[in-house]
Order: sequence, then C-alpha cells, then structure tokens
Amino acid sequence: MREIKIKASKEYDIVITSGRQNLLFQLENHKLKNFYVITDENVYEIHRAYFDLLRDKVLGISIIRAGEDFKNYETVSKLYEDMIKKDVNRKTTVMAIGGGVVGDLAGFIASTFMRGLKLVQIPTTLIAQCDSSVGGKNGYNFNNIKNLIGNIYQPDLVYIDVNFLKTLSSREYVNGMAEVIKYGFVCNKNFFNYLNENKKGIMEREADKLLHIVYECVKIKGKIVEEDELDADKRHILNFGHTIGHGIESASHFNILHGEAVSIGMAAESFIALKLGLIDIKDYEKLISLLKFFNLPVKFSNLKIEEILEYIKKDKKKISKDIKLILPDGIGHAIITSELKHSFIYEALNEFTK
Amino acid sequence: MREIKIKASKEYDIVITSGRQNLLFQLENHKLKNFYVITDENVYEIHRAYFDLLRDKVLGISIIRAGEDFKNYETVSKLYEDMIKKDVNRKTTVMAIGGGVVGDLAGFIASTFMRGLKLVQIPTTLIAQCDSSVGGKNGYNFNNIKNLIGNIYQPDLVYIDVNFLKTLSSREYVNGMAEVIKYGFVCNKNFFNYLNENKKGIMEREADKLLHIVYECVKIKGKIVEEDELDADKRHILNFGHTIGHGIESASHFNILHGEAVSIGMAAESFIALKLGLIDIKDYEKLISLLKFFNLPVKFSNLKIEEILEYIKKDKKKISKDIKLILPDGIGHAIITSELKHSFIYEALNEFTK
Repeated sequence: MREIKIKASKEYDIVITSGRQNLLFQLENHKLKNFYVITDENVYEIHRAYFDLLRDKVLGISIIRAGEDFKNYETVSKLYEDMIKKDVNRKTTVMAIGGGVVGDLAGFIASTFMRGLKLVQIPTTLIAQCDSSVGGKNGYNFNNIKNLIGNIYQPDLVYIDVNFLKTLSSREYVNGMAEVIKYGFVCNKNFFNYLNENKKGIMEREADKLLHIVYECVKIKGKIVEEDELDADKRHILNFGHTIGHGIESASHFNILHGEAVSIGMAAESFIALKLGLIDIKDYEKLISLLKFFNLPVKFSNLKIEEILEYIKKDKKKISKDIKLILPDGIGHAIITSELKHSFIYEALNEFTK
Repeated sequence: MREIKIKASKEYDIVITSGRQNLLFQLENHKLKNFYVITDENVYEIHRAYFDLLRDKVLGISIIRAGEDFKNYETVSKLYEDMIKKDVNRKTTVMAIGGGVVGDLAGFIASTFMRGLKLVQIPTTLIAQCDSSVGGKNGYNFNNIKNLIGNIYQPDLVYIDVNFLKTLSSREYVNGMAEVIKYGFVCNKNFFNYLNENKKGIMEREADKLLHIVYECVKIKGKIVEEDELDADKRHILNFGHTIGHGIESASHFNILHGEAVSIGMAAESFIALKLGLIDIKDYEKLISLLKFFNLPVKFSNLKIEEILEYIKKDKKKISKDIKLILPDGIGHAIITSELKHSFIYEALNEFTK
C-alpha cells in the first residue's frame, strides 16, 4: 500500500493498494461514515463484494446507467431527488465507485448538494485511477458540450484498488493507457522509458506494474494540481492530445472512447511538434510505436476534418478564436501555443485519416 | 468610500460607497472586463444608467423575473443556454446587479459554468448589501427546499452603492433591517446600541447612516466568514432568527418576505432564550421594540404551527431529528443548542400567533 498526500485548497490522501481489505480502516481513519454511494450498473454487477462490505454504513446506493450519454442534468436531478428521499444530510459522505462518468457526476453532486458534502472517490477504471479521480475536476455535459457545467472540488479521500483493473475489458484497459503514456511523454522522461521497458508486463496487468504506473501518474498529477489547482496555467500541460482528441471524441459522438481519441490527438499533436522542429523523428516514432503496442488507434476514419475542427472551436476551454495546443518539445516537457493557423491543424489532421 | 478586504480561500475587496462614479475605476483596478450581466426586471427598469455605464464591456445582459419563485433550475438552465449563445468564455466575468435572488443565481452560475468564472456582486437591496453578497453562499431552490442546491464561491469584487437603497419600497427596505438588527443583537452590542440611538435617521435613509450600517454589517460578516468560510461552526451564529424564520417563510409560501420571517423568528427565539433565563426581559423588550419601530412583524397569522414545524424539520441544515437554535445570551453574543424538545418550540410559537 502506498499513500500520496495532496496539498491543494484542501489536503487529502490518495491510497493506492491492491484489494479492498484496507477500505474500512481507511474510511474510519479519515472519520468518514454514513455514505450515499453512486455507481453504475456494470460496476455494481461485477463488484458486489464492495457493496456488501459497506452495507452497514450506507444510506442509499444509486446505480446510474453506464456511459457518457447519461452524464447530463437529467441524471443529476434524479440523484438529487433520491438523496432527498434517502434523508441525505450535511454529515453524509458521497462515495463514487466507478469510472470517469460516475466520478464526475458524484463530484458535482457532492459539491452542490446542501452547499457541499464530503466526497470519497473509489475509481475503478485505469483512466479514473490515473487521471480523473485526482485533482477535483467534475462536471456534466450540457447542450452537447462536454463538461460544460462543473467545478473543481477536492475529495476527502481517494481509495485506489488496482484489482479493479483486472476485470476491465481490453478496450477499456488500453483506453486508460493513453493517459498513462501522456504523463510519461510530456511530464516525465524516466516514466516514459519505464513504460517502454515494461510494456509487456503492463499489457499483462501484472500487479506490481499496475501499482507502479498508477502511483507514478498520481504523483505527477498531484504535483501539478498542487501548483495550479484552478487550471490557470501549469495544469494545461495535461491537455496534451486533448485539444484534437476532444474534437475527435465529439465528432464520433463518443463512439471513439476518450483515451482512444486522446491517443489519436497525441499522435497528431506530436506530428505538428515534429513539423515545427520541436521534437525529432526518433522521439515521435517512440510515441507512435508505444501507442500501437497497446493497440491504441493513431489514425481515425469515417470522420470529417471540418467537423472535428468545429468541435475543437466549440471546446469549453477556448477563450478566443485561436486553438490552443500543447506541443512536446523533447520527451518529458511541452510548450503551450495558440499561434498556429487553423489551416495548419487541418493539414496535420489530414495525415491522420486512414 | 470605504473598503473592506476579506481573506477567505480567496482574498477580495468590498467597496462601500454612494453612487456609481467609482465603478469603472474599481473594475479596471481589479482587472475585470468582459461582463455577462444578470439582473432582474425591476432593477433593469429603475437603474438603466448603470447598464448604460457598462455598455461597452458587456457580452450580454440577462434579465430574469424578480422573486424567489424563479430561483430554480429552469432559470439556471436558461442562463446557461444564453451564455453559450453569447459566447461567454473563461475570461468572462459574471456580474450580478440585483437583490438576493439575482446574487444567489449569478453566484451559482459563475461557480459552475466552465468550472468557474470570475464574479462581481453589485447588491441593490439592503438584505443583499448587508448579508447575502458577502461570504460566497449561493444556490437555488429544489423540490420546494430553499437553497438545497448551491455551494460557497467567493466573488472577486463586491461593489456596494447605498444609493440603490433609496429606491427600495418601504417594505423591501425594512425587510433588510431585520438582518441588520440581527448583526447587532447577537454579534455586537455597540452596533445594537447605535441602531437604537439612530433609528430615526436610519428609517429616513440618511446617507451617512446607510453607509455606516452597511459598513458595520459587512465588517461583522466578513470577520465571521474569514473564521469559518465553510459554515462548520462559528458562521452558524448568523442563523439567529432563521431556524424558525425559514419555517415561517416556507409555510407562508414566501408571501412573508425573508427579513419579515427572520424578524418573527428572532422574536420567538429570543422569547425562548428569555424563558430559559439566557437573557433578561429588558434586553428582550429592546429587541421587540426596535423591530416594531421598523414596522417589522413580530407575530404571524394564518399559518399553522404544525406546518411551520414540518418545514423546520425539512430544513437543509438539519443533520438529525433535533432542531438547532441560535439563542442570544445577552446582547452581542449567542449560544447554539439542539437540546430543546419540539413541544417547547411549539409552545413558544403559540405565543407568536396574532
């Protein structure tokens, strides 16, 4: 078991372990009791033992439908209504057991019900364990704009059990690997090398490898969150692959998963960095071959580039007509630029259609 | 012009002045530009000069219908939609020009749109200037529960122009006096004495009196917010009169205004304090006669005590079956108790029916 303490506007612990045997102790240790649990149907089906463990401490369990399509106000308001029925009060802790959608909705609800309840995140996917459960970002989609409504609200505890990762489908697992590779490629060269050297064991989900990659990602992300909790500047680096990735994800109507889209986005944005002379061809190829090793897509098909660009322009992070890109300049760091012409991005995307 | 700096999770200035002549300077000085303005139809009608002043700096003005009835998600979602249409982005500042309803909605929207925009509060009612514009509480009503959904989000600037108070109806003005008297009675004996000694000038809305009472209330509230921003303990004292007040307000279906209900609540809760020997009859009578001087109600009619109690029990702040009361123990301080039997509160309320 490893622990990382995050010192943001609120100080909180992230526990990284394999198995649920420490959960009750950790909850007690953090003085957390009386939970309102939010999960999705898949997690509830497969991991019933988790819910049995918590049985005595739970006011209610709300099982939402899985998937990005349900991350909207309709789901939010149903949860609010159920919380009223279950007599949730200011001493109740909201607990999310699930992937990014569950975590994002639960975080938003905890931050807005009765002006803020305590929050425990128990992320079950690789993408949630390495990325979305840390740092407090939450939200839901509004008028087809991803995460338009949301805020930044830190949890009181994050309990990461890497055993959850063993039950993920291959597609869901490698979806998370895109974010893991992102952390290596733009934040930490040693970690990128580790991923390259241990890719086989990681692909086979060996327990020590899982613990190590989750620990490293959380450590990198935690440090960035401490420096820029409100996403004003330094945290932008984590959007590597996401500008183009979000455009692709939206244009595919979420048929391409988030990590898959980020993988294509990283490929395209690195290609732009290559064209601008920020990275050399060897580094570029290292990234592409690692993405391919994990069966992540690096090209897209059946999407119109015009449509992808339209979604990029509508991105909630856009603050002017310029498109902001995070471009690697060597492995382990990146620059942020808004100076590229749209036509340049168009041409780069053109290289990434199958 | 007076300034108070609040040092909460965010540091911000409150400017208290008469007139709008300093507004543009203050906005520039705080590096605030590009506003999305939320106001209500009454304020927009009477204070057009304010909107003219801001004309060049505004992406959009949204005029909501006045009143507690419209403080709901329907209004919130219409505002979100309008903000998308007007191309509001992360560099836009939300500006509230209005009373408590406008301020509460604008605060919630600023805190949740694109994970948080800057916020300027320009409160126009006495209740908003002395109380709700300071401290960051926001929210909307959900399933008939007042402010069930909301959070605590500090503004970047509060600009208080006491000239707004001169255009309020008598009823709206004295409605705010209830909160002003509250600050004196449970937080600061000198201020309570000041109110007593200057009640005539205050009732006549003399400019120096208005500046003084707003300044004193903001100073008291600011200090409490600095000590307990998240409303964990010390801030509870500001709920004096509000436990019973909220019950009366809800049972009247908001026909009794917030301050009027708080006035009756303060009377009833002080009566309980008197019965328990926490205050003496002279202090109790001082409060009652000051409330009466300002034409504030100290009794209610046409409401069922059972129904008031039901609403009190449903209050979002309730964390157990016990009813929490803030009871003055001498002028200028109060205790918090949850130990009174419901029947005791019932009997006290019985004394306050007309």
